[in-house]
Amino acid sequence: SETKKIAVISGDGIGPEVVAEAQKIIKVTEEVFGYSFTMEHALFGGIAIDEKGTPLPEETLQVCKSADAVLLGAVGGPKWDNNSKELRPETGLLGIRKELGLFSNLRPAVIFDCLKDASTLKPEVLEGTDLMVVRELTGGIYFGEKFRREGAGGEEAVDTCVYNVSEVERIVRQAFEIAGKRRKKLASVDKANVLETSRLWRETVNRIAPEYPDIELEHVLVDNCAMQLLRRPSSFDVIVTENMFGDILSDEAAMLTGSIGMLASASMGEGSYGLYEPVHGSAPDIAGQGLANPIATILSVALMYRLTFGYAEAADAIERAVAEVLDAGHRTSDIAADKSKALSTTEMGDLIAKAI
Amino acid sequence: SETKKIAVISGDGIGPEVVAEAQKIIKVTEEVFGYSFTMEHALFGGIAIDEKGTPLPEETLQVCKSADAVLLGAVGGPKWDNNSKELRPETGLLGIRKELGLFSNLRPAVIFDCLKDASTLKPEVLEGTDLMVVRELTGGIYFGEKFRREGAGGEEAVDTCVYNVSEVERIVRQAFEIAGKRRKKLASVDKANVLETSRLWRETVNRIAPEYPDIELEHVLVDNCAMQLLRRPSSFDVIVTENMFGDILSDEAAMLTGSIGMLASASMGEGSYGLYEPVHGSAPDIAGQGLANPIATILSVALMYRLTFGYAEAADAIERAVAEVLDAGHRTSDIAADKSKALSTTEMGDLIAKAI
Ligand SMILES: CC(C)[C@H](C(=O)O)[C@@H](O)C(=O)O
Ligand SMILES: CC(C)[C@H](C(=O)O)[C@@H](O)C(=O)O
Repeated sequence: SETKKIAVISGDGIGPEVVAEAQKIIKVTEEVFGYSFTMEHALFGGIAIDEKGTPLPEETLQVCKSADAVLLGAVGGPKWDNNSKELRPETGLLGIRKELGLFSNLRPAVIFDCLKDASTLKPEVLEGTDLMVVRELTGGIYFGEKFRREGAGGEEAVDTCVYNVSEVERIVRQAFEIAGKRRKKLASVDKANVLETSRLWRETVNRIAPEYPDIELEHVLVDNCAMQLLRRPSSFDVIVTENMFGDILSDEAAMLTGSIGMLASASMGEGSYGLYEPVHGSAPDIAGQGLANPIATILSVALMYRLTFGYAEAADAIERAVAEVLDAGHRTSDIAADKSKALSTTEMGDLIAKAI
Repeated sequence: SETKKIAVISGDGIGPEVVAEAQKIIKVTEEVFGYSFTMEHALFGGIAIDEKGTPLPEETLQVCKSADAVLLGAVGGPKWDNNSKELRPETGLLGIRKELGLFSNLRPAVIFDCLKDASTLKPEVLEGTDLMVVRELTGGIYFGEKFRREGAGGEEAVDTCVYNVSEVERIVRQAFEIAGKRRKKLASVDKANVLETSRLWRETVNRIAPEYPDIELEHVLVDNCAMQLLRRPSSFDVIVTENMFGDILSDEAAMLTGSIGMLASASMGEGSYGLYEPVHGSAPDIAGQGLANPIATILSVALMYRLTFGYAEAADAIERAVAEVLDAGHRTSDIAADKSKALSTTEMGDLIAKAI
């Protein structure tokens, strides 16, 4: 088949280690399924600040734009935490989202059988939890005007939260489509009893809903959603919400699965373009020691195959291989009951590669 | 002692039932401790919309302003959910907060031994959880300018989030003071890696912190806080945050205790003025049936005694009486294992009154 291009951003901390294993998996699927990829590395985040003086160098953007998909490890670390805004990894993250038009962040939160006990929730509450948070990623208070000014009560800071109808339509339509391929339930989360952007959001959802008569829709206020995720996680299928609420709720949802080290995410742009990355962070404390769990990044490749390339067979194979290796009792130290028997990052990658 | 005035707002749904029991408790403490209160009722919320055409009638505001404290049941219900903004109970809630200058919402989240199992969290994770969310209540995106406009992408909605230094100082100082009377730990929650208001917030916290050298301070990003509340709830003591984040996190914190039907809250203004209410809602589905649990409202009276009146002895007595009645196995139906043995609202109120 046609050669596809993947931009590979290793990033900081454990990023390079987990990305190396994901690339190993990509190579195996090339052999097994006859795909052909070129992979081009690019600097981003802390390492780009160190080497290029900016978290998002122009050439990185070009590499990403010329690719069909982006694979990202993780960015950030204490080293850059006290930098000025322009020299912080997060600024690069917001920049790349905007520049690549990644308006939709998909965060599947699923339970891995072997990690059920890792959750702080009772197993009977978690049972059957399999949800997806669809978070709007290029609008809202993240990207609205921000400034300081002098006011009556001293210095004032202002953030502006803006949404227009097309931005809401785009993400909401996508969420309805995704729900249609899942359990056909959509929870739209807003704060319509307080915010004007939420009222626009809700109106738009209600206007679009009749186009998807087979999807069961509920509107949930964000504070209530934070509660219901704890009370009845398994009752949710797809949750769609704006940027800031999505940031908070997707992290809450990920944590309650107990599987945060294993969750993949996709940030989608127009068409099938997407950036794929593990939900976990750069874990600078364990970086470079071969301790990192590569599974979330490997599962991000599966997500990439499914959503960008339509390689469902290979995506299934990767997910099956991960399940097999876990079922056989193999663990990296983050998820091992007995740390002395834990596998290294590369050992885990090798086992999954072999299982494909 | 001097006669104090309490404005009593029964509100909607189960509000009148639970407030009646709280008043019963107030009267008992008058006898036992020699206090003297006048209580003046006022219409607010849905019932005020029905009877006065506005959720917050001017005379209600006057009754509240002339009182030393306000006791509130609960407001809202499906009946008013589709009203226009001006005719919705929530609008009254936002109005009363602003008009009475209630800038600080205190939400203790504690575990009741008898309800440990009601939480969806594992008991060993919950063990020792006793935290307080201090939420800024009259600023931020709740009260900033809101409007619609035409933009390039069609109709746009805008919400503005504003904080000035004095608003932040006021709430942060209060949080430090509260932490000083507790376990001396303060978590300040913001999104300083994205929001300008959060950067102002964090600068202000850091500027004030040296005045409280005995308080251990940590800065936590809001998304991370949503996770850490699940992972290590017992490690938090006081959490201070801005209005919108506080709305979400205080509900999450309340839910994880499993005791949401039992939690009290205080909204404080200047000096010792405060509005006290249960965390739970108006529960219209069970209203008027004597099924409501009055404990959260009764505990709100204890909070009022402690924070507004400095009646620590009576506050202790109320809390002790509640614990005693629960320890003896008495339950309303919401928390009863065997619903057939559940007490009515008034029976529970009577038992607690007798125990004081
Ligand atoms: C690092 C930060 C800017 C980012 C966000 O808030 O979007 C992160 O929390 C995320 O969820 O990807
Ligand atoms: C009803 C609503 C406006 C209110 C809020 O968001 O403040 C409620 O959720 C609360 O927490 O008291």
